[in-house]
Amino acid sequence: MKSSSAANVTVALIHHPVVDKNGQTIAAAVTALDLHDIARSAKTYGAGAFYVVTPLEDQQDLVKRIIDHWVTGAGAQYNPDRQAALSLIRLQPSLQAMLEALETEHGAKARVVATSARAGDNCLSYPELAALAQDGRPIVLLFGTAWGLSDAVMETADYRLAPINGRGDYNHLAVRSAAAIILDRLLGRDDT
Amino acid sequence: MKSSSAANVTVALIHHPVVDKNGQTIAAAVTALDLHDIARSAKTYGAGAFYVVTPLEDQQDLVKRIIDHWVTGAGAQYNPDRQAALSLIRLQPSLQAMLEALETEHGAKARVVATSARAGDNCLSYPELAALAQDGRPIVLLFGTAWGLSDAVMETADYRLAPINGRGDYNHLAVRSAAAIILDRLLGRDDT
Repeated sequence: MKSSSAANVTVALIHHPVVDKNGQTIAAAVTALDLHDIARSAKTYGAGAFYVVTPLEDQQDLVKRIIDHWVTGAGAQYNPDRQAALSLIRLQPSLQAMLEALETEHGAKARVVATSARAGDNCLSYPELAALAQDGRPIVLLFGTAWGLSDAVMETADYRLAPINGRGDYNHLAVRSAAAIILDRLLGRDDT
Repeated sequence: MKSSSAANVTVALIHHPVVDKNGQTIAAAVTALDLHDIARSAKTYGAGAFYVVTPLEDQQDLVKRIIDHWVTGAGAQYNPDRQAALSLIRLQPSLQAMLEALETEHGAKARVVATSARAGDNCLSYPELAALAQDGRPIVLLFGTAWGLSDAVMETADYRLAPINGRGDYNHLAVRSAAAIILDRLLGRDDT
């Protein structure tokens, strides 16, 4: 995959609709470290943007405070590398609003790739994802917080990415780790 | 790499000696989420153990409290998957003590692979690391907290792993993300 097309890859962290440990649909709270870690990974791999999606106003306020501190406030001076990463964050109230913003930004609908730790039918393999990203058209990778994206999101996505297989049956990665690994599999392979 | 040899890979998170943003050697504080995320990644990829190294007694107490809660306490019932991951954690007061414990556990000295975001001479490539791990002899991957492992650690390690290259010059990954990516590069490639 050519370097220039990494900018057409968008990472999105979805806080609603996701499921809790009992499978109920919830709006999850924002974890500050998710924003830092995934922004740093997105910046490292040249992703175009990192969308954070939450409908909850108090959680939107938290995201704004984090961005303000690190992008324009005291944190920016303390750690310019963190500023560079967190500058990628875009806040949106819903998946639909995010997709509209992406279409406006790129002038084309983004292909939606949902990620999950659970296996499903017709999953996109990692080579298939890389091939898909080759053409430079926008693509957005959805990551779910809490116990993952709701079935409704999985079903409306254009593609479902294969789960990350480790060794054995255990695959309870943190969403921060899963995002890092998937970006590396998609954009970090050429020179290793 | 064969599945069985993953158990000979140990992950170690070093809190001393590491450097701060000015390059001074310090003992870093323990971050609870480092323990959770790296334990979950280690468990996913079948690593044999996850050593947490800190000489600070109050930080050792923190690590013990986290282990107690999730491995034998209320957290174990609440989330057995987290219990399975955090069961991999072994606490040690120093790098030297950790290496001795590893030698006792495996009956052979572990080869020490230091990781760093900074490029260096004679770095081990990822295919070379995979080849090294093939023989089933113990190998330990050292990850530094704060601004990374001190030069003294880098120099005494048997190998220095090449930095993770993304796209461009930015490579300020969280240690949690770097550990996930390196485990995936080493142990997660076969079936994708």
